[in-house]
Amino acid sequence: MDPRTAPPPDAYLGELIERFLPLRDGEISGPTETLEDGEAERFGIAMATVDGQVFSAGDDAKEFAIQSISKPFLYGLALDRLSRQEVHRKVSVEPTTEAFNSLTELEEDHLPYNPMINSGAIAISAMLHHADPQQADGWMMDMFGDYLGRPARLHPRATDSTATAHRNRAIAHLLRHFDVIGDDIDGAMRMYNRQCVVTADVRELAGMAATLANGGVHPRTGRRAIRREHVRDVLTLMFTCGMYDTSGNWAYTVGLPAKSGVGGGILAVVPGRMGLAVYSPRLDSHGHSVRGLAVLKDWSCEWDLGIF
Amino acid sequence: MDPRTAPPPDAYLGELIERFLPLRDGEISGPTETLEDGEAERFGIAMATVDGQVFSAGDDAKEFAIQSISKPFLYGLALDRLSRQEVHRKVSVEPTTEAFNSLTELEEDHLPYNPMINSGAIAISAMLHHADPQQADGWMMDMFGDYLGRPARLHPRATDSTATAHRNRAIAHLLRHFDVIGDDIDGAMRMYNRQCVVTADVRELAGMAATLANGGVHPRTGRRAIRREHVRDVLTLMFTCGMYDTSGNWAYTVGLPAKSGVGGGILAVVPGRMGLAVYSPRLDSHGHSVRGLAVLKDWSCEWDLGIF
Amino acid sequence: MDPRTAPPPDAYLGELIERFLPLRDGEISGPTETLEDGEAERFGIAMATVDGQVFSAGDDAKEFAIQSISKPFLYGLALDRLSRQEVHRKVSVEPTTEAFNSLTELEEDHLPYNPMINSGAIAISAMLHHADPQQADGWMMDMFGDYLGRPARLHPRATDSTATAHRNRAIAHLLRHFDVIGDDIDGAMRMYNRQCVVTADVRELAGMAATLANGGVHPRTGRRAIRREHVRDVLTLMFTCGMYDTSGNWAYTVGLPAKSGVGGGILAVVPGRMGLAVYSPRLDSHGHSVRGLAVLKDWSCEWDLGIF
Amino acid sequence: MDPRTAPPPDAYLGELIERFLPLRDGEISGPTETLEDGEAERFGIAMATVDGQVFSAGDDAKEFAIQSISKPFLYGLALDRLSRQEVHRKVSVEPTTEAFNSLTELEEDHLPYNPMINSGAIAISAMLHHADPQQADGWMMDMFGDYLGRPARLHPRATDSTATAHRNRAIAHLLRHFDVIGDDIDGAMRMYNRQCVVTADVRELAGMAATLANGGVHPRTGRRAIRREHVRDVLTLMFTCGMYDTSGNWAYTVGLPAKSGVGGGILAVVPGRMGLAVYSPRLDSHGHSVRGLAVLKDWSCEWDLGIF
Repeated sequence: MDPRTAPPPDAYLGELIERFLPLRDGEISGPTETLEDGEAERFGIAMATVDGQVFSAGDDAKEFAIQSISKPFLYGLALDRLSRQEVHRKVSVEPTTEAFNSLTELEEDHLPYNPMINSGAIAISAMLHHADPQQADGWMMDMFGDYLGRPARLHPRATDSTATAHRNRAIAHLLRHFDVIGDDIDGAMRMYNRQCVVTADVRELAGMAATLANGGVHPRTGRRAIRREHVRDVLTLMFTCGMYDTSGNWAYTVGLPAKSGVGGGILAVVPGRMGLAVYSPRLDSHGHSVRGLAVLKDWSCEWDLGIF
Repeated sequence: MDPRTAPPPDAYLGELIERFLPLRDGEISGPTETLEDGEAERFGIAMATVDGQVFSAGDDAKEFAIQSISKPFLYGLALDRLSRQEVHRKVSVEPTTEAFNSLTELEEDHLPYNPMINSGAIAISAMLHHADPQQADGWMMDMFGDYLGRPARLHPRATDSTATAHRNRAIAHLLRHFDVIGDDIDGAMRMYNRQCVVTADVRELAGMAATLANGGVHPRTGRRAIRREHVRDVLTLMFTCGMYDTSGNWAYTVGLPAKSGVGGGILAVVPGRMGLAVYSPRLDSHGHSVRGLAVLKDWSCEWDLGIF
Repeated sequence: MDPRTAPPPDAYLGELIERFLPLRDGEISGPTETLEDGEAERFGIAMATVDGQVFSAGDDAKEFAIQSISKPFLYGLALDRLSRQEVHRKVSVEPTTEAFNSLTELEEDHLPYNPMINSGAIAISAMLHHADPQQADGWMMDMFGDYLGRPARLHPRATDSTATAHRNRAIAHLLRHFDVIGDDIDGAMRMYNRQCVVTADVRELAGMAATLANGGVHPRTGRRAIRREHVRDVLTLMFTCGMYDTSGNWAYTVGLPAKSGVGGGILAVVPGRMGLAVYSPRLDSHGHSVRGLAVLKDWSCEWDLGIF
Repeated sequence: MDPRTAPPPDAYLGELIERFLPLRDGEISGPTETLEDGEAERFGIAMATVDGQVFSAGDDAKEFAIQSISKPFLYGLALDRLSRQEVHRKVSVEPTTEAFNSLTELEEDHLPYNPMINSGAIAISAMLHHADPQQADGWMMDMFGDYLGRPARLHPRATDSTATAHRNRAIAHLLRHFDVIGDDIDGAMRMYNRQCVVTADVRELAGMAATLANGGVHPRTGRRAIRREHVRDVLTLMFTCGMYDTSGNWAYTVGLPAKSGVGGGILAVVPGRMGLAVYSPRLDSHGHSVRGLAVLKDWSCEWDLGIF
């Protein structure tokens, strides 16, 4: 079933909502007391095509923190602002069977495995911050604005949760120890923490994916968010490493470059065609949205979207 | 540079031979006393398109043992003869940062990480052998014949080298211990060892890749070698796991599903378009042909062949 | 409480039986259908002093397979027959946090960590078998006879259980791969398997421990079972490595060189004074007799037997 | 050779100095620009008996930072001030094959393996600091004073070297993440860092060891430095874990509870008899004094001091 010949996307998205609304497995991330009423139950789906159409269903206007979905975008920013060579002197490009927040690989190889896991993203943040401590935050906010098609903003109450703050700081000190990052750990952590609480609704998230699908240019605004030559690097690492230690299974069952965040969002890129996004905050043990995985698996299969 | 608009492929392949002939790094695998004169220096390149053209340069008529290049093809055979579900109850689909012949992952997870490493391939061989001990070898030889476009044959002197025989047998006993495979370890090992010494020349190897690029049908004979629905599984695992613990780097720098063998061969698939193959026996420390890596990296870059 | 001033040992041992008879945690090793009636419930305790006295209580006349308790004794035999230097070229002396039957350390270091775990004991067996394939089994049986004070015999029905046979054979092939052992894997495994099914009752087991406590001479027969200079090596490795990955906790809570077997036996050495033994087949998850651990912990504490 | 029948200890110590003075392998720890002239070449040996005699040779009046030698003493202080139970809820007692400064075990087990490695010692420091933030430093300084027989003092220029500061802070944040320690990371690190730069000369170091050999009472001052019941815990952990990932080899070749520090000091306890100490700053790759290891290996062997 090809999207261009299939029933109207709106109908299909609505059907996916119905199909998976009963799925209530998983746990939300972070302290429940900060949740808004009904937040855990939210469920939105969107798709944005490279020619600028956007379809959506469900809770499609609620903003949430993108969390780790920020990682491929920061990585792209680092490629643009620094260079492939400079970035990959400090961060490798290998998938890992360790969890997203592991320190083990640092102990063994002294370099983060890839930019899609916490250690790699902290290294990327440190690089950008180090390149220009005054400007780096502005680069980042502008970059997210280009992908979102409107000025980026931060989640009002989200900050680095205490559940992960100490682990990430441990990673940062170990990166410092191995000379992957420099002395300004506080600056690097601030940048890392801010990128995680950039907000989007699910339609905007699909637009971010569509921008990558479109060679780096936002389909609606026509603004370039990342150099064309770096899009393939970002998509490759999303494909091989984006879903952490389940990346292999994701490649096998969904077959699309993707990234998820513990805020409940997940996006996937169909190169040359469109961006897909799901928002539903209940997570599995790997930190992926339970409904997000289920939706994208069926969607990719039913529309035959996989890259192979 | 697109192959359809580029200078004649023959000229390009000849130029690649010239470019990398001086590259003599790496070591051949196995005992040198069994080598033919000049075997270590051989260097051949070929490409086969989905419309049946074959181009080649260098030592393109020398047959060699395909070794681990057999793994994706056996995996496809297992999918066809058994089923996805049955195969993946026993073998996972995750990339690994361990070496191709590691036992460590078995100790941790009790299942081989994927069918592209020795433990997974031994499990696949055992499954097929177990499914029909009388017929399985015939299935295998027929399948390779379909990919080669001529009856499959085994290397006259190659057998499981003593360098790896005991390690592979250790893997087999550990697989038996964890009930991944059954009691007929000798039968499984025989099948595993025979698949490794199937021979091809570099033009035939490109044809095997082209068969996968062509949805499972050999471009010249028109014979189907694998069901269409399983081609994507094979390509996905070649992309994420085919180059062992360097798969991430390969995906990043070459961006094509590929597989290498310690016999010096390496093939890559450009889905929908063509198969590429290189033969040169000197290997790097990961067991990949040194010239093979260098050729495919330049080729993919210069013809912009990467899937992203 | 010192044993020489304490109430009569017989009374104390009887009291220990009473104290821990209600403790019925743990699982027996191996297939239950081969058990004799009530075998799982057996419970015997014994102590043998260096001046030849033996005290016991409970099921003190039932013979059982010593299983891994054989390991320090085979190690001592290897020291006597070969030399410290020759033995430790192939087996290290480091404690491990891996389980007793792990292959992981071989993958990392290519040598067994110590002679008290399966990989080390298989290496020791191979060394002895290799030194003289005709005589080695006789050396072993004579050695056990010297420790037992009567001719050694093998358990009539016990053989290498299928539960561990394939894992041990995997270890053997990996040892072969790393050139720790030679080609006669079957010979080494036969020797390894036979040592495990040597039998003793709990009084004889205490006598084996007392022989080590007595500098290598059996207190009752006066026969030397191991050279004096090697007794310290055996005791040191029993202390640091004898209880596998719980050796640290054992040293901390009991403080005596000890060794346990999955047959339900456990022995401990009080250097210069006596040997202690317990027999009770229910095992904890590490393969140690549950009652054995409980008895020896209290006994060491109440009689202040720890070496520090 | 027993020390009571051997030639005068002074002569023996002088002979050891001569024997190993030519041994100049190894590297000093830390930045060379802070070294005093000739510091790297210093070499002192001392022994202190439980009846109050002290013998020494070589550079026996130079004070140096005890560094990790502080660990067993802080552990003893924690046992005295808190309790066995409270301490070991947060720190295990297992030897490790990881290096002294590894974070890997925390990732796996979420508890430090033992109090003799950095992670365990940081946890111990945090416990003590948390128990009474105002008094804890005083307890520590008093305790070291009791072992030294004079008021404790800190090295004037030594501080936590930048080479290890970030790694230790990474450990602290990971301990915090796993709730092993509380929020006052700075307080814990200050206590950890101060204990490392307590100074002693080699005669005083031998006295510290002799205090443990003497059941916790300083032989010269008669002051108790640790409760008798906790001495065995300290000695046990020094024996099984004191020499990090070489503890097994140390137990095998020297056979005494011991602890070394990167300042070049190393002490060993002969229970009931005496304390031994060596000072020589060149270290092997595990962080042990090269001459220290060589001296104690010969000394233990020639005087037959091993506990087994």
